[in-house]
Amino acid sequence: MRELILIGIGTGNPGHLTDQGREALRTAELILVPRKGPDKADLADLRLAICAKAAPGVPVAEFDLPVRDASLPDYKRGVHEWHDAIAQAWAQAAGAAGRVALLIWGDPSLYDSSLRIAARLAPAPKIRVVPGITAIQALCAAHAIPLNEVGAPVLITTGRNLREGGWPEGVDRLAVMLDGDCAFRGLPPEGIRIWWGAYLGMAEEIVEAGPLAEAGPRILQTRAAARARHGWIMDIYLLDRCGGT
Amino acid sequence: MRELILIGIGTGNPGHLTDQGREALRTAELILVPRKGPDKADLADLRLAICAKAAPGVPVAEFDLPVRDASLPDYKRGVHEWHDAIAQAWAQAAGAAGRVALLIWGDPSLYDSSLRIAARLAPAPKIRVVPGITAIQALCAAHAIPLNEVGAPVLITTGRNLREGGWPEGVDRLAVMLDGDCAFRGLPPEGIRIWWGAYLGMAEEIVEAGPLAEAGPRILQTRAAARARHGWIMDIYLLDRCGGT
Repeated sequence: MRELILIGIGTGNPGHLTDQGREALRTAELILVPRKGPDKADLADLRLAICAKAAPGVPVAEFDLPVRDASLPDYKRGVHEWHDAIAQAWAQAAGAAGRVALLIWGDPSLYDSSLRIAARLAPAPKIRVVPGITAIQALCAAHAIPLNEVGAPVLITTGRNLREGGWPEGVDRLAVMLDGDCAFRGLPPEGIRIWWGAYLGMAEEIVEAGPLAEAGPRILQTRAAARARHGWIMDIYLLDRCGGT
Repeated sequence: MRELILIGIGTGNPGHLTDQGREALRTAELILVPRKGPDKADLADLRLAICAKAAPGVPVAEFDLPVRDASLPDYKRGVHEWHDAIAQAWAQAAGAAGRVALLIWGDPSLYDSSLRIAARLAPAPKIRVVPGITAIQALCAAHAIPLNEVGAPVLITTGRNLREGGWPEGVDRLAVMLDGDCAFRGLPPEGIRIWWGAYLGMAEEIVEAGPLAEAGPRILQTRAAARARHGWIMDIYLLDRCGGT
């Protein structure tokens, strides 16, 4: 593998693909598509559809994504070994191809491990990144709202950080990602607004918004029902605290 | 105007346009393109080139962007009146067109006033937002780096906030936008790394990175020279403080 191109494909709307992304797919000798097993959240079919439409004729290699050993007592070491295994799986699936492309959900720069996994490849290929629409942008677009108040900061954070650390000091807007457990439940809801969205950009897109006190319980219910119906869910939310700092 | 579509076009690389953006341009009855006068930073020619390529045949109306009255002592009121004037200019340029498109630099959700200006239109049109690649994403792609450390938060902020408030508590990564004055100069550079980029995504793209102590002065010099050469500059940077919280 001489070159690895990480291509952000957006959040499930094939229309999120950029011209730059399409061009990069077309110049690849091989496109790698991970399979996570029976779990639908790998959205392998959607990736394959994007490849077939954007870069017909470019060979695609599906590979089984290694599973993280959750039984290891040391979490960081578990992730470390898992990333090693993924890098090996990439190299194996790439075979003799010189220029290889990987489709990255959202954007390769935001809460994605691909750049860190790519750094484990030996010999090191040239790494190229093509940006893609993130879930944060799809959320703001769906609600037709700005991410930031005028001139004010926004913190991008995770459900775990919010749950463990509470509302951080000095910032009134939070974009919360990677939250499988609805950390907003742990906040005193007074004065907080929420804009939530799931399956953003996809046909299944759902959005909800309102004061956290009334929208929070509604979102929990909607989320649980949607997850049961589809068998998986990807969601994200934005929180605003009025003049709280 | 029945419908106003705000279309994020990315940061100057025509390849940043998404399929969704192109489709939205094609369905418009009229595309509005602002002119800021002789200042090249409006990049009107680049916008016109995108329209001509992505949506040939759709009429384009250029209009002079009103200038903010900087002599008003009340800054907020000055911005308020300016936004009113822009909304009027949009309505006037739109004429009898029902579905109007506006090309937004980057993404309409990030440090952009278009959504707030659109809210002043009366009668209120339907507002639709199409997300686009932001300068933050173009910066990370150019450097092939993740925006965040594993599971850690990132603060998106402005040069003014950094200059007036210093490094905020509780976060080790800052993406700094709207900084015409290189606020990183005011930070004690020990333990800080910077990734900087100007004209990101464009043919003129320049990037620099390194420990702030040595990269900072280099960036100041490079930035001043590039600005003098081109007559304008758009830049952004990411800062990381190692284990500083």
